[in-house]
Amino acid sequence: MTPSHYNRIILVQRPTGPVDSSTFRQETLPFDLKPGDGQVLIRIQYLSVDPALRMLLDDIKSFTTPTQIGEPVRCIGVGTVVESGKNSPLVPGDIVSGFVGWTEYVVADAEQFTKVVVPDDANIVDALGALGHIGLTAYFGLIDVGKIQAGETLLVSAAAGATGSLVCQLGLAKGAKVYGIAGSQAKCEYLEKTVGVTKAFNYKSPTFHEALAKEIGGFDLFFDNVGGDMLDFALTLMNTHARVVLCGSISEYNSTQLKPLTNHVQLRMKRAKMEGFSLIDYLPRLAEGKQYLAELMKQGKLKQQYHIVNGLENAPKALGMLFTGENKGKLILKVAD
Amino acid sequence: MTPSHYNRIILVQRPTGPVDSSTFRQETLPFDLKPGDGQVLIRIQYLSVDPALRMLLDDIKSFTTPTQIGEPVRCIGVGTVVESGKNSPLVPGDIVSGFVGWTEYVVADAEQFTKVVVPDDANIVDALGALGHIGLTAYFGLIDVGKIQAGETLLVSAAAGATGSLVCQLGLAKGAKVYGIAGSQAKCEYLEKTVGVTKAFNYKSPTFHEALAKEIGGFDLFFDNVGGDMLDFALTLMNTHARVVLCGSISEYNSTQLKPLTNHVQLRMKRAKMEGFSLIDYLPRLAEGKQYLAELMKQGKLKQQYHIVNGLENAPKALGMLFTGENKGKLILKVAD
Repeated sequence: MTPSHYNRIILVQRPTGPVDSSTFRQETLPFDLKPGDGQVLIRIQYLSVDPALRMLLDDIKSFTTPTQIGEPVRCIGVGTVVESGKNSPLVPGDIVSGFVGWTEYVVADAEQFTKVVVPDDANIVDALGALGHIGLTAYFGLIDVGKIQAGETLLVSAAAGATGSLVCQLGLAKGAKVYGIAGSQAKCEYLEKTVGVTKAFNYKSPTFHEALAKEIGGFDLFFDNVGGDMLDFALTLMNTHARVVLCGSISEYNSTQLKPLTNHVQLRMKRAKMEGFSLIDYLPRLAEGKQYLAELMKQGKLKQQYHIVNGLENAPKALGMLFTGENKGKLILKVAD
Repeated sequence: MTPSHYNRIILVQRPTGPVDSSTFRQETLPFDLKPGDGQVLIRIQYLSVDPALRMLLDDIKSFTTPTQIGEPVRCIGVGTVVESGKNSPLVPGDIVSGFVGWTEYVVADAEQFTKVVVPDDANIVDALGALGHIGLTAYFGLIDVGKIQAGETLLVSAAAGATGSLVCQLGLAKGAKVYGIAGSQAKCEYLEKTVGVTKAFNYKSPTFHEALAKEIGGFDLFFDNVGGDMLDFALTLMNTHARVVLCGSISEYNSTQLKPLTNHVQLRMKRAKMEGFSLIDYLPRLAEGKQYLAELMKQGKLKQQYHIVNGLENAPKALGMLFTGENKGKLILKVAD
């Protein structure tokens, strides 16, 4: 059963700073979606609200195609196949995840989607969190790029965020000393009491820089989700042969001007390494990551807090929340049951 | 036979920018040097004039101890053992290299020195160049840190300099396409005609940026000896998974203010890596490097141009030449025959 109409939210004009009311437009279209050869029609249930969405609103080359003007905002989501075209390996009823958009329904090539298998102790939203692209990003970034070792000092920025909180837990499971940076006292308490980090630091505190430096001395690995001034400061705290994993740069996605870095010379002084990465390079190894994450979750060592916002119409608001830090845990937009 | 007096040049005060006449003082001392237990007395013949000397005039933590006020400027040199203390493994007549200073004679622990073995087709100054710390820096930086592969595009800054010209030759020997950046038309011609790089670019040319970008498109590996604006520009030319090896930063050693980097976000976009290194981490593997370099030299594929300045009293002038780019090839100070 499909409706007579469906809603979607399209990009009207590319923002030059934070998104506002002129960036998007919601539209209601007559339902004329029909899967072609190799395609499927998907009814969207949950959409992942990630900082990277903001990056995809700019017309720049990045890890994937940017959102086009007039098209629904590109994002990762989970939904159910309601109709399957000829030669599609998926069948109606299959729950799938993949790149979709801010829309209630979508027709796309079946091969772009992965069937979601939810373990007993998990929830369907985990496919967009701890067991999905977020968990996999944390896993490959920390284990494969960062090569965290037991006993090392791991520093994580935006540590109470979706990726950060999983990185902290993976680090703890590997036997690292884990220090988290977050933007409120409440987030720091969550990190220390629920996530179990060694210590958390509120970057809005006036004594943040001295307190962090004094406590950790230096780090072996910095997993950075923030960029900008946070990254520049962290570069002053590197141990010899330290590694910096550039995962995200949430402080900069809304800026038109790039924040300069001045402490990169420390990379030479400390014979240290700074490396950018994207999950896109790990597609052939996703199964390995999923298995590891599911096992850790089964052992009770991997938990993700979800912050669910209801209704497609609230997608722009949800995106904005990421940049003010209002969300508590991984932001998910619930489009339908 | 030792003289009644000897000369040395000491650091009088730490410079805040380029060195000047108030930075150093030459002094003549009565000869009272006597090697103690495990020590040797060395008569200095050649001193290596390297950009890193400038860094060692600042009181900062780096790869080795900075020069102390009142002490001869620390540098690497080659000399002959004239007297050997008890329990020293070296004997008079041994030619050795190691950290010495701007002085005609020095007494130091024998274990800090390496016996120089000059292959048939090499010269004693090669121990301070292609077969010494310069060649080894080029070798480990390019092969071990940079992991250059045949067919890749290698970009080298200060390519006509001591390290740069060896990096170019090692890259060519590995089958890379090698592009050099230098500061004059004459240096570019030397790179193209003598060193044999694919193409060289004069960074003082008004069309430098566009010409380089157009010619190479993007690089797989950038071996940077310059830092500052050159590094920032290069970050806009990275191929996906590019590597940047931070070897030196000659544009910045004389500055009191650090040059900001703005294009480091490209590291994330391109899933690229920027890594600092120092030869100090490769001490256990020097023999491997020396063997490789000597073999390449034997095959005629590794040549170093030397620029010899005569007389200890000209050491400050020689150091200055590095920063104006006046030198043609590896700068060596000849103290004695």
